[in-house]
Amino acid sequence: MKEFNDLADLNGEQVKELLALANRLQTNPEPRALEGKVLALLFMSPSLRTLASFQAAMVRLGGGSFVISPDMSIHGIETRPGIVMDGVAAEHIREAVPVIASYADAIGIRAFAERRNLDHDLDDREFNNMREYCQVPLINMESAINHPCQSLADWKTMDDLSVPGNGGKFVLSWAYHPRVLPLAVPSATVHMAAMRGMDVTVLRPEGFELPASIMDKARQAAQLSGGSVNETNNRDEALEDAQIIYAKSWASTQHYGNRVADEEQRRDLNDWCVDESWFAATQDNCRFMHCLPVRRGVVVSDQVLDGPRSVVIQEAQNRMYAQMAVLHQILAST
Amino acid sequence: MKEFNDLADLNGEQVKELLALANRLQTNPEPRALEGKVLALLFMSPSLRTLASFQAAMVRLGGGSFVISPDMSIHGIETRPGIVMDGVAAEHIREAVPVIASYADAIGIRAFAERRNLDHDLDDREFNNMREYCQVPLINMESAINHPCQSLADWKTMDDLSVPGNGGKFVLSWAYHPRVLPLAVPSATVHMAAMRGMDVTVLRPEGFELPASIMDKARQAAQLSGGSVNETNNRDEALEDAQIIYAKSWASTQHYGNRVADEEQRRDLNDWCVDESWFAATQDNCRFMHCLPVRRGVVVSDQVLDGPRSVVIQEAQNRMYAQMAVLHQILAST
Amino acid sequence: MKEFNDLADLNGEQVKELLALANRLQTNPEPRALEGKVLALLFMSPSLRTLASFQAAMVRLGGGSFVISPDMSIHGIETRPGIVMDGVAAEHIREAVPVIASYADAIGIRAFAERRNLDHDLDDREFNNMREYCQVPLINMESAINHPCQSLADWKTMDDLSVPGNGGKFVLSWAYHPRVLPLAVPSATVHMAAMRGMDVTVLRPEGFELPASIMDKARQAAQLSGGSVNETNNRDEALEDAQIIYAKSWASTQHYGNRVADEEQRRDLNDWCVDESWFAATQDNCRFMHCLPVRRGVVVSDQVLDGPRSVVIQEAQNRMYAQMAVLHQILAST
Repeated sequence: MKEFNDLADLNGEQVKELLALANRLQTNPEPRALEGKVLALLFMSPSLRTLASFQAAMVRLGGGSFVISPDMSIHGIETRPGIVMDGVAAEHIREAVPVIASYADAIGIRAFAERRNLDHDLDDREFNNMREYCQVPLINMESAINHPCQSLADWKTMDDLSVPGNGGKFVLSWAYHPRVLPLAVPSATVHMAAMRGMDVTVLRPEGFELPASIMDKARQAAQLSGGSVNETNNRDEALEDAQIIYAKSWASTQHYGNRVADEEQRRDLNDWCVDESWFAATQDNCRFMHCLPVRRGVVVSDQVLDGPRSVVIQEAQNRMYAQMAVLHQILAST
Repeated sequence: MKEFNDLADLNGEQVKELLALANRLQTNPEPRALEGKVLALLFMSPSLRTLASFQAAMVRLGGGSFVISPDMSIHGIETRPGIVMDGVAAEHIREAVPVIASYADAIGIRAFAERRNLDHDLDDREFNNMREYCQVPLINMESAINHPCQSLADWKTMDDLSVPGNGGKFVLSWAYHPRVLPLAVPSATVHMAAMRGMDVTVLRPEGFELPASIMDKARQAAQLSGGSVNETNNRDEALEDAQIIYAKSWASTQHYGNRVADEEQRRDLNDWCVDESWFAATQDNCRFMHCLPVRRGVVVSDQVLDGPRSVVIQEAQNRMYAQMAVLHQILAST
Repeated sequence: MKEFNDLADLNGEQVKELLALANRLQTNPEPRALEGKVLALLFMSPSLRTLASFQAAMVRLGGGSFVISPDMSIHGIETRPGIVMDGVAAEHIREAVPVIASYADAIGIRAFAERRNLDHDLDDREFNNMREYCQVPLINMESAINHPCQSLADWKTMDDLSVPGNGGKFVLSWAYHPRVLPLAVPSATVHMAAMRGMDVTVLRPEGFELPASIMDKARQAAQLSGGSVNETNNRDEALEDAQIIYAKSWASTQHYGNRVADEEQRRDLNDWCVDESWFAATQDNCRFMHCLPVRRGVVVSDQVLDGPRSVVIQEAQNRMYAQMAVLHQILAST
C-alpha cells in the first residue's frame, strides 16, 4: 500500500484484508514488526484520539513517531501557494511537508476544512496540496472531506459486534451542536456504510443535505456492495428497524460558509439530540455510534451515551487497531 | 499490582520490594522488558519532572508512551459531571479518560487541587472521578492530595544515602512562597516518612497546620512502622538533631480557598526560607530535600541548594527509577 | 565523544569519520544500536527540523527521547543567575537542566541569542551556563553563535553532491528578511566551509560584516585545511565561478541589538533575494543552500527554491543522518 487516503481507493476485499490484519495484530502482538521505523505526524488542527492512537500504534509495532504542529515552527506554517512571505509565517508547507516526511518512513497529515467555500472543501485542496509534497507514503488523518481511519475503525467495530453488512440498516443522523462542524466524518461514514453493503439512511433537517458528490460516491459504493443509500428528514421513517444510529453534527450545506445563516437555521433544532425515544422503533439491539468528541446533553443524552447501546469507546479503541493494520501494510515490508 | 495510587495501599514489605526492583533496574537495565507496551500520560496541569521521567522510564524498559493534555482536545476537557455541554469544552473526561486508556496498557494521571474547598480536595474528587473511568492500571502522577511517585523516590533517596528509618529524624518544614500551593506533597511526605519508621516533625507557622485526616493517616503508618509524628511551630525544637529537612510550601489550611486571607497570613513569613542557620543544631550530615521546582532565595538559599547538603537532583532522578519499578511491576507480567 | 558543541572541537579526520558513520547508518540501519538509551531534548526556543530529526534519529537507532520546553514548567524557567525567584518563574535552569539530564544518556539543548549585546551573544553565555549544569554528554542543537548539527549536515550534503573541498568555491550570502535573525548559522557555516578546505566568500552589505572573532576562527580553520576566507559587498565578484550559494539573513552587526537602526539599515536591501540572475556567472551546476525555514519571495525566489539548483530538502534530511552519527558515537559504546 502506497497511501491510505480514501477508503474508496480500496475494494471490498482489500478492506476485509486490512480488517483481518487489524484483528490479528489485536490478538497476536508483533512488537518488533516496525523496528527502527518512523512515522511523522503532522497536525494542522487539534487532535486527541488521532494523536494518541497513532503514537500508541507505532509503539505496539516496535517503531516510533514524532509530532509536528504549526505552533512548533517559528510563527506558524504558511499554506497559500505563490505568496511573498513578508508577513508572520516563517515557513511554507512546500518545505515543511517534504522536510518532515524526509525523516520518516510514512507521514500522517491532519488538515482542516476552511468551512468557507463548499466546492473548495469538497476538493480537499489544502490536503491535496500537501499530499503532492510527500515523498513517502501518506496517511489521511482527517482532511476537509474525509476520515478513512475513522471509517475503517467503525467498520471493524460493526464486525466485532456482528452487525450485518448486507441487510443491516444504518442511520447516519445529523445532530444539534452549537458550532459549525466539518463534513469529513459524515462524508466518510455514509460511504463506508454503503461500501459495507448496508442499507444507509442519511437523516437530517432541511438545509443540511449532504452534497451531491458525496451522496453519489456512496451510491456507487452501494451498487458494488449490494447496499443502498437514501436521504430523508423523516425521523420515524428513518429509524424504523435501524441497527445503528450514527450521530454527527455538520455544517449547513445550504448556507455553507455563512456562519450567521447556519446558526439561524439550526436555532430550533435542539431536539436533534439522540435520546432513548429515538430507539422506540429500532431493532432491539440497535447501537449508538459517534466518532467523538461528543457533547453530552447536546448531541446525545447521558443515558444513551452511558448505556449499553453506546459503542463509542470501542470505536475509538478500534482506531488504534485499524491504524496498526494500515501501518503494518505500508511499512512492514519496506 | 493493579494500581499505584497511594503508598498507603502497600505495606512496608511491598514498598521495600518495589525499591529493590528500582535498584535492580538502575544497575541492570532491562531494555526489552516492556517491548510493545504503551503508557498513556494524561496531564491536567503542567509538569516537567513527571513528564520527562515517565517517558524516559518507558524508553529504558523498551516500551513507549504518549502524552495528552487538555489543550490537545478541541477547546479543553470538561470535568464536571452531569453537565449539558453547550459551552466551550467539546469533550468530557467520561469519554476522554477511557479512550486514552484504551490505547494503553497503563495510564498515569496528573490531576489538580482546586484549592477552593478543603474537604473537596482532601476527598481527591476530580482524581477519583477519573480513576473510575480507567479500565487499565492507573498510576497517580500527583493528585489534589497525594504524590506517591515522589514519595517512593524520596524513600529511595534516603535509602541511597543510608539515612536510617527507625530512629531517623525527619523534619517536614513549611516554607515561604509567593503563591498558594497544594497539599499533595506535604500530605504524601509526612505519611511516607512515618511509614519508613522515622520520627517525623511537621514544622509550620500557625494557620498552616496539616489537616487532621492527613496527620491521622501518618500516625497510623507510624504506629505500624515504629515511627512517630509530631507537629510544632517551634523551629529550634523541631530542627534539633534533624537528619533531613524537607522544605515545602503549602496553602494556609486555616483560610483554605481564601487567597486574600492566605496572603495576609503569610505576609510576614519571608524568614521561612531554609538557609545555613537552620542547620545549626541538626546532625552534621543533615540533608536538604525538596521535590522541585523550588524558588531560589525564597524557599531555600542558593548556598544550601548548591551546597553538599542538597540532594534535590538525586530525588528527581530517583523519580525515574522508582517509576520504572512501578511500571515493571504493573506491566512486565501482563 | 563526550560532547558535540562545536565543529572546531574536532579535526578534519574526526569530521570525516563522523560523516562516514552517517553514511553507513543511512545505508545500513542499526535499529537496536541504542536500545534502552534516552536522549533529552531541551528547547528554549521553537524548532521544527531539530525537534523532528532528533526524535526520528533516536527511533531509527532503537532508543527514545523526550522533549522539554520552558512552557512545560509552571510559569517558565528562569535563566538569570543569583536571582531571588519571587516573580513569575517557578524553576531555575540550575535545577531544570541537571534534572532533565539525569533522566537521559545525553542531552541536546537549543538556546537562543538574546540579540541585545554582541559580545554577550558571541560568548554564548546562556548556552555555556546550561552546559555547565549537564552531567551527561551535551549536543548543541543551536546556540546563540553556533549550530554544529546544521554544519555537519551541510558538509555531508556537499559530499553527497560531489562538491569539491579544496578548490571548491563557497559563497555565504546575506539575504533580506523582515526580522533580525541570529548569527548562529552564518557563524557555523563560514567555519564549516573553511574547515572543509573550500574558498569561502562572505557576501554581505555594509553594516552586516561578520564579527572579527567569527572570521578569525574561520581563517584558522582554512589555514589547516588549505582553504581561504574572504569578505566582500561586491556581488558580481563574489558569485563568479561559485559552486555553492548559501543564503542566510542575519542581524546588522554594526547596529547589533538596536532593532530600529537595523531595520533602517536593511530598508533598501530587498534586492538581496537570491533569484536566477545570481547564477549568471557561477559555475553551471552551482547549488542553492539554506538551512530552513526560508521565506519565499523574500530570501529566495520560488523559481530557485523549487528548481534543480536547490538542495534545501537534502540538507534538512541530512540533519537526521548527521545526528544519528553523533548519537551513535556518543551513546553506542556506553
